Amino acid sequence: MTRVKKIILEEKDMPTRWYNIVGDMPNKPLPPIHPGTKKPMTKEELSVIFAEELINQELSQESYIDIPEEVQDLYKIWRPTPLVRAYNLEKALDTPAKIYFKNESVSPAGSHKPNTAIPQVYYNYKQGIKHLTTETGGGQWGSALSFVCKHFNIDLKVFMVKVSYYQKPYRKIMMNTWGADVIPSPSTLTSAGRAALEKDPDCSGSLGLAISEAVELAVQNPETTKYTLGSVLNHVAIHQTVIGEEALTQMEIAGDMPDIVIGCFGGGSNFAGLGFPFLRKNLKEGKNIRILAVEPQSCPKLTRGKFHYDFGDSAGLTPLIPMYTLGHSFQPSDIHAGGLRYHGAGAVVSQLLKDGLIEAHSIPQLETFEAGMLFANTECIIPAPESTHAIAMAIREAKKAKEEGKSKTILFNLSGHGLVDLYAYEQYFAGNLQNYDISDAMINESLSELDKL
Amino acid sequence: MTRVKKIILEEKDMPTRWYNIVGDMPNKPLPPIHPGTKKPMTKEELSVIFAEELINQELSQESYIDIPEEVQDLYKIWRPTPLVRAYNLEKALDTPAKIYFKNESVSPAGSHKPNTAIPQVYYNYKQGIKHLTTETGGGQWGSALSFVCKHFNIDLKVFMVKVSYYQKPYRKIMMNTWGADVIPSPSTLTSAGRAALEKDPDCSGSLGLAISEAVELAVQNPETTKYTLGSVLNHVAIHQTVIGEEALTQMEIAGDMPDIVIGCFGGGSNFAGLGFPFLRKNLKEGKNIRILAVEPQSCPKLTRGKFHYDFGDSAGLTPLIPMYTLGHSFQPSDIHAGGLRYHGAGAVVSQLLKDGLIEAHSIPQLETFEAGMLFANTECIIPAPESTHAIAMAIREAKKAKEEGKSKTILFNLSGHGLVDLYAYEQYFAGNLQNYDISDAMINESLSELDKL
Repeated sequence: MTRVKKIILEEKDMPTRWYNIVGDMPNKPLPPIHPGTKKPMTKEELSVIFAEELINQELSQESYIDIPEEVQDLYKIWRPTPLVRAYNLEKALDTPAKIYFKNESVSPAGSHKPNTAIPQVYYNYKQGIKHLTTETGGGQWGSALSFVCKHFNIDLKVFMVKVSYYQKPYRKIMMNTWGADVIPSPSTLTSAGRAALEKDPDCSGSLGLAISEAVELAVQNPETTKYTLGSVLNHVAIHQTVIGEEALTQMEIAGDMPDIVIGCFGGGSNFAGLGFPFLRKNLKEGKNIRILAVEPQSCPKLTRGKFHYDFGDSAGLTPLIPMYTLGHSFQPSDIHAGGLRYHGAGAVVSQLLKDGLIEAHSIPQLETFEAGMLFANTECIIPAPESTHAIAMAIREAKKAKEEGKSKTILFNLSGHGLVDLYAYEQYFAGNLQNYDISDAMINESLSELDKL
Repeated sequence: MTRVKKIILEEKDMPTRWYNIVGDMPNKPLPPIHPGTKKPMTKEELSVIFAEELINQELSQESYIDIPEEVQDLYKIWRPTPLVRAYNLEKALDTPAKIYFKNESVSPAGSHKPNTAIPQVYYNYKQGIKHLTTETGGGQWGSALSFVCKHFNIDLKVFMVKVSYYQKPYRKIMMNTWGADVIPSPSTLTSAGRAALEKDPDCSGSLGLAISEAVELAVQNPETTKYTLGSVLNHVAIHQTVIGEEALTQMEIAGDMPDIVIGCFGGGSNFAGLGFPFLRKNLKEGKNIRILAVEPQSCPKLTRGKFHYDFGDSAGLTPLIPMYTLGHSFQPSDIHAGGLRYHGAGAVVSQLLKDGLIEAHSIPQLETFEAGMLFANTECIIPAPESTHAIAMAIREAKKAKEEGKSKTILFNLSGHGLVDLYAYEQYFAGNLQNYDISDAMINESLSELDKL
C-alpha cells in the first residue's frame, strides 16, 4: 500500500446540520442596529432585503441548524470535499510540521462560495422570490450564485467590482454561461453608483460600493426581489461550517488533530466555515487550537482596524454592524485577491477576535504570490489569489516549526483554485505586482467617519 | 437519507494495474513501420524519441501492467475521481435513460491528461532524461505535462497549435505557472515549422504539425531529450484505463452497468481510457455494451477516413501507423475543441473499429455547444469544448431512449472542464461559431497522399 494522500468521505458521511457558534460564544455578538433609530434591527426591517429563513438563522442562538434535504442534494454535486496531506509542500519546506488542506476548489464555481449560495437561493425560492441581486469582488461569489440561480430559475443581477470585472473577463463569461447579468460597479444603474462616479469617474470600485448598488436595487421591489451577501453575515458563516464539520471527521479518520487552523479573510466566510467547528473544541472541550484569520496587508481591518459599529457597504444603506473596520469609505488597493478587498469583518468574528478567541495576521501581496507559486509547484493546484494568503501563513508556521524543531499539525482552507484568475499570475510573472503600504493617516481618515455614526 | 449522487471511491480502492486491451483483441493491431525500410519499427529505432519503458508498453501484448507506486502516489493528488449520476440532466431531457458521467475534470490541469503525463514523465525521469518536448492542441495535454515535469524537475518545451495559443491565452499562463516553455506552432524553431510558414504565413497550425516540431527537436539530442505524446499511441491508452477501471468498480457499487459508453475522440486517449475496460466485458464475458467514439463533424477520420498506414504528424517524421486517417496533410477547421483537431486515430482503436467492436459518430460544433450549455445549466459544471461531444452524444441517446420508451444506462466521460476555455463560450454567445461542411473532395485530396507512402 502506498501512503494515504487524501481523506475522502462518502456522501452518507456528510454533515446534516450546520454549526452556529453563537450558541457557544461566551460573549454573544452585539445586534445589528438601525442607522436611523439606533435600535436593534427587527426581523421586519431585515426582511426588506433578506429572505425570512435567512433572517431567522442570522439571529439564531441555536448551536445547530438542520440542512434541508434539497440543499444536501445540491451539495452532492461536488461535496464532500477532500482533506489533503501536503506531503510535497512539507518536503519542499523541509519542515517537521504536518500540513493538511481542505480542498474547497473542487466545486463547479471553483471555490467554497456555493456552500452558502445553495441555501440562500433555496430559502428565497421557497419564499417565492423571483429576482436576486448581489455584489462580487473576485467573482467567486457571483459565479457560485449564478449556477444556483439557474437551477432554481431565479433571475440574477451581479454587481462586480470594476477592477475585477476588467482583470477577470472570464469570470464574467462564467456567470453569463449560468445565465446571470453582470454589471461593472460603480454603475449608472443606481444612485450609489452614480454618486461614486461623479466623485471619481475612474473609481475602480470596492465590495462595499457594489453592496450598496445591489441593496439599492433590491429594496426598490421588496416583494419580488431580495439581496444576497456572500460573506460577513452570520447565516453565511453558518452555511460554510459544512467545511469544518467535514474536516473534523476527516482529521479524526487521519488520526490527527490540528494545532493551527488557517483561513484567508475577506468578510470571514471561508475562515469561519473551516475554523468554527474547531473553535468549538476549544470552547466546549477545553482544547487549545489556534484559529488564524489572514488578511491582505493592504486591507488590514482585523490587525489595524477599530472595533465599532459601521455600515456593511460604502454608501451606508445596510444596517450598522458591530465590526472590526477600517471605515466604510476605505478604498482598498487594487490587489488581485479581489475577494479580500473589504473594509470590515462580520459581527461574530469581530466579537471572537475582541475576546482573544481567534488570531489575526496580515501578509503582503508578493509573499502571497510566492506562496501560491510554491504550492502550485509542489501540490500541483494553482490557488486563487485569495487562498494564497492562507497558504503563505501555513508556510510561515511550518518554517517556524522547523526553527523551533517542533512537530505541529497545520490545517488550512484552500478556498478556491486560480484557473479563472490566471491574469493575476501573468501580472506576477511580468513583475507588475507590488506590496502596498497603508499609512496610519490613511486608516485614521476613513476611521474618522465612524465618529459621525 | 437523500439520494446518492456520486459514487466515491477511497484511495485504497484505486486500480493498481493498467489494462492493455491488445492482450484480449481477436485481431492484434498492425505494427508501426519504418517509412524508409517499410519494416516494423524496432525498439532501438523507437528509442530515439521515446523512453524505453514506454516502448515496452507500446509493444506489449500483456493484458495488465503494474502501476508503479510512485505513479500511484501522484495519481492521489486528485484520484480516484467521482462517478456522477446526472439526475438534473435526465430530468431536463425527460428521459427514461439513466445518465452517468465519470468526472475527469477534477485534476489539477482540469482534464484526464495527467493520467498519462505522470507515468510518461516518471519513466523518462527514471531513464535520466533531462528535457522533454511535446505538442498541445487545446492545451490540456501541455498543462498536464507541465505540472508533472515541474514535479520531476524536467525541462519542458510545448509546441501549442497556433489557433489555440491565441484562443486560449490563459492555457499558456497555466503552463508557464508550472514552469514550461510554450511556443506557438508553426514556429521558426524547426524546419517543419519554417516550411509550413513558408507555404502559408498565416497557417493556424494543427496537432500533426506541432507533433512534427516537437519530434524534430527531440531527435536532435536523443541522449538527453525525448518526445512525449498525449494521445494516439497505445501506451497512452493503457495509462488512461485507470478511468475505466475505476468506473467499472463504481458502476458495480451503483448496482448498475452501462448499455452505452461514450467518449469524445481526438487521438483516442480519453475514449480508450473509459471504454476499454468495458469493452473487455464484451470480449471476455460476452456482454454487449455499445462503445461509442464521438468526433467533430469537421474532423471525421473515424466516420469518413480511410484505414491505411499514415504518418502521425504532418511533416512525416513519425513512424507509419495503421490508422483511420484523413491523410496527414488534412488541415482541420478552427473549431474550439482544439484537442479533437487531429487527422488520425491510434492503431488499436482503428483495428477495433475495423473489426466492428466499437462505433464511431460525428457531431457538428453548434450541437456540441448546445449540449455543453444544457449540461452547465443542469449539472452545473462548464465542460471543455472537447467533452461537449460526448455530452451531445449522450443527449442523442437519451432522447432516443425516450422515443423508444426504453430505459437505458448511459455512461460518458467528462474528460475536462471548460474554465480555461471560456473564450469559446464567449464566441458561442456572440453567435460567432459555425458548423463546417467538409466536402468529399477535400477529404479525397488529403487522402490521395496516402498512395505515395
